[in-house]
Amino acid sequence: MDKIKVMIVGYGNVGRGVRKSIAANTDMELVGIISRGPERVKKELPEMPVFHIDDVDTWKKELNPDVAILCGGSKNDLPVQGPALAKHVCTVDSFDNHSCIPQYFAEMDKIAKNAGTSAVISTGWDPGIFSLERVLASAFLPGSNAYGFYGLGEKGGLSMGHSDALRTLDGVIDARQFTHAIPEAIERIRKGENPEFAAGDMHWRECFVVVEEGVDKAALEEQIKSMPGYFEPYKTVVNFISQEELDSKYAGFPHDGCVVASGTTGDGSKAMVEYRCAWESNPEATANVLIAHARGVVRMFKEGKRGAFTILDIPAAYMSQHSQETLLAKFM
Amino acid sequence: MDKIKVMIVGYGNVGRGVRKSIAANTDMELVGIISRGPERVKKELPEMPVFHIDDVDTWKKELNPDVAILCGGSKNDLPVQGPALAKHVCTVDSFDNHSCIPQYFAEMDKIAKNAGTSAVISTGWDPGIFSLERVLASAFLPGSNAYGFYGLGEKGGLSMGHSDALRTLDGVIDARQFTHAIPEAIERIRKGENPEFAAGDMHWRECFVVVEEGVDKAALEEQIKSMPGYFEPYKTVVNFISQEELDSKYAGFPHDGCVVASGTTGDGSKAMVEYRCAWESNPEATANVLIAHARGVVRMFKEGKRGAFTILDIPAAYMSQHSQETLLAKFM
Repeated sequence: MDKIKVMIVGYGNVGRGVRKSIAANTDMELVGIISRGPERVKKELPEMPVFHIDDVDTWKKELNPDVAILCGGSKNDLPVQGPALAKHVCTVDSFDNHSCIPQYFAEMDKIAKNAGTSAVISTGWDPGIFSLERVLASAFLPGSNAYGFYGLGEKGGLSMGHSDALRTLDGVIDARQFTHAIPEAIERIRKGENPEFAAGDMHWRECFVVVEEGVDKAALEEQIKSMPGYFEPYKTVVNFISQEELDSKYAGFPHDGCVVASGTTGDGSKAMVEYRCAWESNPEATANVLIAHARGVVRMFKEGKRGAFTILDIPAAYMSQHSQETLLAKFM
Repeated sequence: MDKIKVMIVGYGNVGRGVRKSIAANTDMELVGIISRGPERVKKELPEMPVFHIDDVDTWKKELNPDVAILCGGSKNDLPVQGPALAKHVCTVDSFDNHSCIPQYFAEMDKIAKNAGTSAVISTGWDPGIFSLERVLASAFLPGSNAYGFYGLGEKGGLSMGHSDALRTLDGVIDARQFTHAIPEAIERIRKGENPEFAAGDMHWRECFVVVEEGVDKAALEEQIKSMPGYFEPYKTVVNFISQEELDSKYAGFPHDGCVVASGTTGDGSKAMVEYRCAWESNPEATANVLIAHARGVVRMFKEGKRGAFTILDIPAAYMSQHSQETLLAKFM
C-alpha cells in the first residue's frame, strides 16, 4: 500500500514532535516541511525538502502531500494558515482557543467544502482527546457533568500561556508556571457529586520566576497574584529562583490531566468514568494525536467526505494503523 | 423531531436497565419489549406492549421499531437472537465472547447487508468502551500495549461467570466471586513498563460461598482453587459465609476497571493514558452504553450505511444527544 504523504507546516516544538514520531507510524512518510523561515529549518535538516509557506505552486508540485499537519500556534498562526492551507490540501490542526472553535469550524468548513478538501480542526489532548471523553461521558451518563483537571502529578503541568504572561512583566528575566489540580475537588466528583466550581476551587498556580537584580520582589509577587484572568482567581504561589535552578529543575514541557464525570444509571446506581493522560512532553503529545488524525482525515477524504471535522466526527478505526481484521481480533 | 423508537429484546437485568435509563434520553421512546416469555414480562409491566420473540409479523407491525436493543446473554441468546433480529431491524448487542467476535461480526455483517439493516455488535464497557480506549491508546502511542484491569476498588468487581462456576459445585448453595486487580501491576505500567503478565500477575479472586451442612470445606476450597481456567491460574481466597451475610454484604452487581497504556513520544519522552470506570450496577452500565449506540446505529442507517459495525466504526457525535452546535460550543 502507498504510504500517506505528510507535510509539516511550521517547525516549532509540535512540528519537531511530528517529525520524530512519524517513524513509529509505518503507514506514513514525511515528504517535506513548509515554514515562514525555510532557511532556519534547512540549516537544522539539510536533507529535508523545505519550502516557504507562500510558495504554494512549488510545494504542491514538489511534495504533493496527502495531508498537511499544521503545527503553528492558535493565536497568530492557525487563524491564517488553516484557511490558507485548506484551500489546497487536507489539513489537521490543533486550534485550541475553545471559545472560538465554532467560528473557526464554520470558516474551515466553508473553505474546505469549496475547495473539495477535508480538514480536521482542534485536535490534540484538549481540545481533542478530552473533548471526545466529555462527549462519551455525556452519552453514557446523560445529565452528568464532565470536569477537566490539569496538573495531577507532583510537579503539576507547565502552562505556556501563563509562563508567557509572567515573562512580560518588568524585571522578569525568565519564568515558568506550573498548574496544579486540587485533589479534593477531583475526589468530590469521583464520589458522585456534581459541584458548581469556581476556577479557584479546581486548580492552584505555582510560579518560578527569575528576576533582575534589585527588583522589589514583594511588589512583583503582589503584581503577579493580582493579574486578572491569569492569577487573580487562583491561589498562587510565587517562587523567586535563579536561572540555573529554573533550567535544571523545571525544564521541558510536562503536562497531564484528567476528565472525570459521575452520574447514575437505572434508578440511581452510582457510576463514574475518568480519563487520564500524562505527558513528559506536551508538544510531542499534541504531535502524536495530530498524526493519528492525519490518518483519519485522509480516510475521510478517500470516502468522499468534504469540509471540516473534529475528533467527534471520526471513527476510532480511521485513526488506527491496524486493519479491521486485527482490530476485531486483538482490540475488541 | 420524531423520537427514536426503541424495542427491548430480552427482559433480564440489562433489559430492565435499558427500560429505566431510556427516560434520561429524551430523543428516544421505548415502544415495546419482546421476550421468549412474554407472560412473565406482562405481569411485571402491565401497560407495556409485550410480544413473543417469534411473532415477527406482529411486533414489526405493532411496534415498528427503529432499533432493537438485544439484552440477552452472549452464551445462548445472542448467537441466535442477533442473526434472527438483524434480518428485520437495526440492532445493538453486547456480545462479549472476545475470541468469537470476528466470527460473530462476519455473520452479522452478511445478514445485515442482505437484509438492508445496520447492526452494532459487542458494545458495553468491555468489549465496548474499553475496546475504543485500547484502539485510541494504540493510535496515539504507537507500539504501546494497553492493559485491562478489573476490580480496582476495595470490594472488587463481581464476576458473573465465576460466580456461576462456583454454584455448579456439589454442596454449594450460593456463591459470588469478586475479582481484584493487583495494584502493583497497574503501577508498573503507569511508570512506563510494558511487562509480559501472566493472568495471575494482574488479578486475584475472592470467593464468598454458602455451603450445605456437613460439607468438607477444606476439600471444597481445594477443589475451587484448582478449577482450571477459572481459579487455577490465580491467587484465590475462599470465604465460607452464611446466606444472610452473602445477601446483605455482597448483593448487587458492582464492577469497575481500567485500561492503561504507556509508551513514548518523540525521541523517548514518557507518556501514559488511562481510562477508568466504576459502576454500582454492571448490567445498567451495559444498558446505558447500549442506548447510546442505539442512537448511533439509527444515524448510521439513515446515512445509508448497512452491515455490522462496532464502537470503533461510529463517530462519538453519533452517540450524543447533543446537536453539532452544542458539541462545538460546549464540549470541544
